[in-house]
Amino acid sequence: MAETRTETDSLGTIDIPAERYWGPQTERARRLFRIGAERFPPGLVRAVGLHKWACVDANGRLGELPAELVEPIRQAAQEIADGERDAEFPLPVWQTGSGTQTNMNANEVISNRANEILGQPLGTRKPVHPNDHVNRGQSSNDNFPTMMHIAAAEAVSGRLIPALGRLHAALWQRSQEWAEIIKIGRTHMMDAVPVTLGQEFAAWAQQVELGQERLRAVMPRLLMLPQGGTAVGTGLNRHPDFDRVFCEIVADRTGLAFAPNPNKFEGMGAHDAFVELQGAMNVIAVSLNKLGNDIRLLGSGPRSGLAELIVPADGLSSSIMPGKTNPTQAEALTMVCAQVMGNTTTVTVAGAQGHLELNVFKPVIIQAVLQSATLLADAAESFAEHMVLKLEPNRERIAENLAKSLMLVTALNPHIGYDKAVKIGKKALAENLTLREAAEQLGFVKPEDFDRWVRPETMIAPGASLGD
Amino acid sequence: MAETRTETDSLGTIDIPAERYWGPQTERARRLFRIGAERFPPGLVRAVGLHKWACVDANGRLGELPAELVEPIRQAAQEIADGERDAEFPLPVWQTGSGTQTNMNANEVISNRANEILGQPLGTRKPVHPNDHVNRGQSSNDNFPTMMHIAAAEAVSGRLIPALGRLHAALWQRSQEWAEIIKIGRTHMMDAVPVTLGQEFAAWAQQVELGQERLRAVMPRLLMLPQGGTAVGTGLNRHPDFDRVFCEIVADRTGLAFAPNPNKFEGMGAHDAFVELQGAMNVIAVSLNKLGNDIRLLGSGPRSGLAELIVPADGLSSSIMPGKTNPTQAEALTMVCAQVMGNTTTVTVAGAQGHLELNVFKPVIIQAVLQSATLLADAAESFAEHMVLKLEPNRERIAENLAKSLMLVTALNPHIGYDKAVKIGKKALAENLTLREAAEQLGFVKPEDFDRWVRPETMIAPGASLGD
Amino acid sequence: MAETRTETDSLGTIDIPAERYWGPQTERARRLFRIGAERFPPGLVRAVGLHKWACVDANGRLGELPAELVEPIRQAAQEIADGERDAEFPLPVWQTGSGTQTNMNANEVISNRANEILGQPLGTRKPVHPNDHVNRGQSSNDNFPTMMHIAAAEAVSGRLIPALGRLHAALWQRSQEWAEIIKIGRTHMMDAVPVTLGQEFAAWAQQVELGQERLRAVMPRLLMLPQGGTAVGTGLNRHPDFDRVFCEIVADRTGLAFAPNPNKFEGMGAHDAFVELQGAMNVIAVSLNKLGNDIRLLGSGPRSGLAELIVPADGLSSSIMPGKTNPTQAEALTMVCAQVMGNTTTVTVAGAQGHLELNVFKPVIIQAVLQSATLLADAAESFAEHMVLKLEPNRERIAENLAKSLMLVTALNPHIGYDKAVKIGKKALAENLTLREAAEQLGFVKPEDFDRWVRPETMIAPGASLGD
Amino acid sequence: MAETRTETDSLGTIDIPAERYWGPQTERARRLFRIGAERFPPGLVRAVGLHKWACVDANGRLGELPAELVEPIRQAAQEIADGERDAEFPLPVWQTGSGTQTNMNANEVISNRANEILGQPLGTRKPVHPNDHVNRGQSSNDNFPTMMHIAAAEAVSGRLIPALGRLHAALWQRSQEWAEIIKIGRTHMMDAVPVTLGQEFAAWAQQVELGQERLRAVMPRLLMLPQGGTAVGTGLNRHPDFDRVFCEIVADRTGLAFAPNPNKFEGMGAHDAFVELQGAMNVIAVSLNKLGNDIRLLGSGPRSGLAELIVPADGLSSSIMPGKTNPTQAEALTMVCAQVMGNTTTVTVAGAQGHLELNVFKPVIIQAVLQSATLLADAAESFAEHMVLKLEPNRERIAENLAKSLMLVTALNPHIGYDKAVKIGKKALAENLTLREAAEQLGFVKPEDFDRWVRPETMIAPGASLGD
Repeated sequence: MAETRTETDSLGTIDIPAERYWGPQTERARRLFRIGAERFPPGLVRAVGLHKWACVDANGRLGELPAELVEPIRQAAQEIADGERDAEFPLPVWQTGSGTQTNMNANEVISNRANEILGQPLGTRKPVHPNDHVNRGQSSNDNFPTMMHIAAAEAVSGRLIPALGRLHAALWQRSQEWAEIIKIGRTHMMDAVPVTLGQEFAAWAQQVELGQERLRAVMPRLLMLPQGGTAVGTGLNRHPDFDRVFCEIVADRTGLAFAPNPNKFEGMGAHDAFVELQGAMNVIAVSLNKLGNDIRLLGSGPRSGLAELIVPADGLSSSIMPGKTNPTQAEALTMVCAQVMGNTTTVTVAGAQGHLELNVFKPVIIQAVLQSATLLADAAESFAEHMVLKLEPNRERIAENLAKSLMLVTALNPHIGYDKAVKIGKKALAENLTLREAAEQLGFVKPEDFDRWVRPETMIAPGASLGD
Repeated sequence: MAETRTETDSLGTIDIPAERYWGPQTERARRLFRIGAERFPPGLVRAVGLHKWACVDANGRLGELPAELVEPIRQAAQEIADGERDAEFPLPVWQTGSGTQTNMNANEVISNRANEILGQPLGTRKPVHPNDHVNRGQSSNDNFPTMMHIAAAEAVSGRLIPALGRLHAALWQRSQEWAEIIKIGRTHMMDAVPVTLGQEFAAWAQQVELGQERLRAVMPRLLMLPQGGTAVGTGLNRHPDFDRVFCEIVADRTGLAFAPNPNKFEGMGAHDAFVELQGAMNVIAVSLNKLGNDIRLLGSGPRSGLAELIVPADGLSSSIMPGKTNPTQAEALTMVCAQVMGNTTTVTVAGAQGHLELNVFKPVIIQAVLQSATLLADAAESFAEHMVLKLEPNRERIAENLAKSLMLVTALNPHIGYDKAVKIGKKALAENLTLREAAEQLGFVKPEDFDRWVRPETMIAPGASLGD
Repeated sequence: MAETRTETDSLGTIDIPAERYWGPQTERARRLFRIGAERFPPGLVRAVGLHKWACVDANGRLGELPAELVEPIRQAAQEIADGERDAEFPLPVWQTGSGTQTNMNANEVISNRANEILGQPLGTRKPVHPNDHVNRGQSSNDNFPTMMHIAAAEAVSGRLIPALGRLHAALWQRSQEWAEIIKIGRTHMMDAVPVTLGQEFAAWAQQVELGQERLRAVMPRLLMLPQGGTAVGTGLNRHPDFDRVFCEIVADRTGLAFAPNPNKFEGMGAHDAFVELQGAMNVIAVSLNKLGNDIRLLGSGPRSGLAELIVPADGLSSSIMPGKTNPTQAEALTMVCAQVMGNTTTVTVAGAQGHLELNVFKPVIIQAVLQSATLLADAAESFAEHMVLKLEPNRERIAENLAKSLMLVTALNPHIGYDKAVKIGKKALAENLTLREAAEQLGFVKPEDFDRWVRPETMIAPGASLGD
Repeated sequence: MAETRTETDSLGTIDIPAERYWGPQTERARRLFRIGAERFPPGLVRAVGLHKWACVDANGRLGELPAELVEPIRQAAQEIADGERDAEFPLPVWQTGSGTQTNMNANEVISNRANEILGQPLGTRKPVHPNDHVNRGQSSNDNFPTMMHIAAAEAVSGRLIPALGRLHAALWQRSQEWAEIIKIGRTHMMDAVPVTLGQEFAAWAQQVELGQERLRAVMPRLLMLPQGGTAVGTGLNRHPDFDRVFCEIVADRTGLAFAPNPNKFEGMGAHDAFVELQGAMNVIAVSLNKLGNDIRLLGSGPRSGLAELIVPADGLSSSIMPGKTNPTQAEALTMVCAQVMGNTTTVTVAGAQGHLELNVFKPVIIQAVLQSATLLADAAESFAEHMVLKLEPNRERIAENLAKSLMLVTALNPHIGYDKAVKIGKKALAENLTLREAAEQLGFVKPEDFDRWVRPETMIAPGASLGD
């Protein structure tokens, strides 16, 4: 049996593991919410510490706390931000919908730790009190959503946008390297007119680049913090300048331009900013899903597929088919995309059900948002490194696929009209002829004209094929 | 039996209703796609006409069409844009995923109509040919997505943003009118500290206002047109300046700053811009869902609910409960929100499945996007007019609910500390006392202090309750 | 100006188009809900007529209505069921969430029409009164969900299950016809060991067959009718036997085993049965999405794709690429699937938000459910007829793809072990050898053993390849 | 630096932590998939062990393995099933979409452990070879989906259905205890006619009971195992009886009626059974979301809400509002529901994208399915214990709310007709009268009739109010 200490709160006494910094609220919650194994990720715990540091600092500057308490509280909060107290946050995501228990968990850990620094044993609640001092001028109702904003903004700007940058760079590099490789294009999955391999990579690159733009377009609303709303949005019991000073401190420490939400009610009763952010990540999932699918299509084979790209041999193989190489990174990527799309429904359902002064789906929202950001970032980097930069074009197959395509006939349109071009294409397909043969047999195009007009290298840009 | 004319295309002959402008491709599609009753909305048909007008105009300016054909084609296209040819577009949404049939439908209607203007009977295909002239320098693959962009951008800027503006104005007006009505706030659906009724309306107003911002943030990518990509994105068979000139014309006619997508492949193979737009509308649905829910909560009653707002008697009632008044507009609104959230999944699934040079879920995407924009706009206006502007506060009930709340005790925190305040609140609840009585009996607060400290009118803003 | 008649209700007077059977409640609703263009589909209007017929019949049998009113009311209801009064139902889906207006619409149309039959002018409300007689013993709150159940059960059993049956038959026919065509299998989109073309069609066939099973598994709960709950589920104001008699009548007229929900509250306050049904249709959408995608993969080409199936030339083509044939039916099908998946989110969101005695998202739920059933049925039939039954195998390409596959090496596992088989496969790929050559060069397999062990025709079933 | 051993596979050498049972495939995968923190839950790892045990046992019985290898392999597999080797499964969910790495992970751990039992050092790959022996007659492609079926079926039958049973029992108990408490009903969130508190609990109970039925309706397809399909569904390289014997063994060990899927292709290329199961859990989420919302509505207050139920004081409170009690369990529950609804989208998107012989979204599907089952089970039990069984009715408030309702007027319909009843209700509301006063003043009902006709106790069941 582990040793315990006994504390008392408004409901009575409760035993807490003796060495733990948490207090009765955390302990009660731990027992009441035995649901699932999901815990908040490190990014949120860091935001909790940073947030609490900024609160005590702001209260200190504004004269709202006894001077001698400020430094111990700051130190205890910093330890959380530094990841030194992760084991002190035992609560699951599936708790009160305001995140109150996690806020109280932080208040209790900080007060106990600060009191310890000040020479008091755990559980004394003084001189530092979890509510009166650590939570001074605050409520879980404005604290927790503020922590959510901080964690999400850091994840997006510090992790997801840069990771997309690395994927973009890899795709762009390929688009430049393979700009001259002319290949068959495909629409409706069917043979179409030529493109370059570089153009295909450039298209994916633009998708990723626009994904970054979409994230940046969301940031203005992500940087609006509800801190200062306290219990219901009015700001009851906090210093009039608390929200402004708090935001300045957080902005200073994170390098992100956080500022007070002019309407705290909006930032507490609703979490539209997270629905919006999740929506932007949903677009990125859609983009990356296409990327993953396209790569596995072009890499299908190695012999009886399209086989225009050679998928890297990563050493992983089938457990029954010897030597089989699979596009494993594309699969991990598209599975991540499926998860992010599902998270979008989760965040939508959760965001739509706020009531009056408080949305009480906060934990599930931030869990889904941070998971989405992390997975997209990790998967984008993994895909860039282990797939994009290791692909090779199969030049022989590319040339072969291009040469036999019937859709080169499209270049004849401006010269002989669509209807005659149709007849050439159909004849070639039916009689297994080349287009050139069919055109000549039908008497629509002289061979020398055909050779001048139907040249893949003039078909990959506007105008070039129009000339005589 | 209706009279028919017989036309011939590459597959053989086909009978077409004699009076119809459409041709064999449309007729074949009509027979092949007997799926559902959904047709493209007027906004898309208008965009089709406008688009085709701009194409012929651009080709004319660039010398790509015989001069004498330009004006008849333009006229025929304009008739479509003006809604005069709606009956000539019989095809369902559920057709080829590139929208090819609708593009060919337009080509056929325009060529037949232009030939008619030039004195030819229907079905001659000359002097104006549907592909060689009307579709000159184009493909369905760049045309249809461009039509989608035009229709969506017009719906958002011309219809949805203004409709949200009217809802915002109504909410804002109420927030000003009722700025002085102090009422109980509610968090976790439970009694909390006071707010004003105006503050509640201002919160909803900010949600709507940010919704407009979100739509505006999406516009840059919605205004990037893939026109000029032709078949696969390369621009094969079109004039080098066609995309630029086309965009200038459309921008001029719509007043929207359309410009060529620098990477046509991205705008044809993927439709991330629509996934993004739908995501923004999804946030608006989330916002309006909360608005609708909150209004019906506050309006619940008339006697045994919260009953702080009086829902307008709209003359509609229960078929069995005489004289019952229901928040019918809130129900229509939230049903619209459910539809828009579902459309978000539809657009996500459809957007994620593009392959290589072409996404072939275009019709379902634009259908869902335009439906979302229209429904949100209609519902926002209806809710503003028939609900927001007809609500009345129930001042008596508001005062009563406020007076009996135990959470006013929160104002004591800064004076006596959280732990003592807990005891006052619990005693008042358990013994059915007023807070003032409980505070006095416990000896924690003198009555005169209580009266000075616990005043709802000082609890609705920061700082005021902190003073002596 | 159309002629009007003036009627009076509790809110005052209102003008109604003179020739219309509807009354003041419908007319008010028409003006209050100017939202969207969506109207209930014919299947629901039929259910409305059938439902009302059964109500009056039941009340007549139970002596709850004056005998002389029964027949005129029945006749008026039957006219609705027969589709003769569609124009009398002008209200949009986006109305009161209980469907009250559509129920009142029916009450008004029936009472006016019945009074007309009895020689009274429209608008007299007697001798047949819309509430007291037509709505006798009923409430919109039990009527409308009952109509929903009837319409959905008929759509599933009468339309969707049979349509899936036709698709199943087509797939099964193909699986038998092509049971002997051995081809390369593909996993991870990569070349794998052989299958038969018939096996591929049989797999899709089983998906469709299980889809039918899933629908049947849902029926027990779809056949539980909430009729008789009246206003809140208690059955206030109805005859004790009304629910039973009503269900017998409806069962008799539809041939479906409808029975009273033992807990009416459950069937009015929640619509889990529809969420469940939509979930089953969601699975079908998932199944058909795979079918559509697989067909377009195998049909990709005609020359530079997998090209194992020949997609039927349906006469539809690219507007720029002459003679191009696309898998248009697969695209219509998969777009329908995307819509159904989105509808699942809609129904989920709508179903999750019922409150206490009434879910007020009824219209959007039934709209989504009936749209899903209709689209899946139409698309399944269209795909069966225009795609499955018109496909042809490309035997030459199939043989070629099979012959060059390296994964035939798998058949060596039981004979030489996995690790040696890996080496053979890798060598063949790297040096562009046949497996036989590589096996011999490595000295792992004698040619005659190779020929005996590696035979595609023994690789398409268990056991055959294991023997010596 | 930890000690390592060096192993060689087809890609070359690789260093593995010396004490680990896993081998080169696992180690390579560990390095290639650094994506997210999600690991498979214990339920899946247990199924992996059980599955491998059954495979070796079946192969042993069929003479497919050297007799002396059977027992060591069985023992090693059993250790996994018993949870003793959890640390040997380091791979993330985000790996190859076939789950190949996890299957190979098991093969490697088992072969190393079996060899260890046989006195060999780790890494020798003999006498027990991971592919040739442990994976004998199997492929990841049929193994992993079979593991998924086993894990899901056990979670549903062993965990979720019983947990729902406990919630049902709690709700049903309440429905019986409070069967006599008459209270106001609410439709459209507005005052309606009376119900009993017991009826409300019975409605939720039926939702939960039908949820169990829905799960049972899914089981037939969940029990169809694809084991025996090996690489592509054909059963290449396995004994003809392997699938049957395997299923018998698993059925015997689990008590669940597993049987071979007659079409292995269907169970490997698609995962419709999981989409269906997730759909059933989605309905349960919808049901529980209503339950959670209804409880928090009825429990709103304690003074200024509906306040008909008293939410248990769980000792958790607001960090700023002293003594506030919140419906924390309802919030945890509805957050879980949001997660499950999102998981439904994830599974739908993942299930819809299988290609040809293999769906490669297996890991994300089973992750979402098992998470859904676990969360629903945990949350249902938590809600039953900490909320349902601790609620108390607020009889005083219930009586008060009932007494003042105007909708009791509905009982007059059968006696005086709907139109007159409307007038009574409107007058009472407008002039703040009781219904009795209004009825008398209007001269529609004599007081003694009123008292006989309008009695809440006769309004909670059919028929009772109809009598004279």
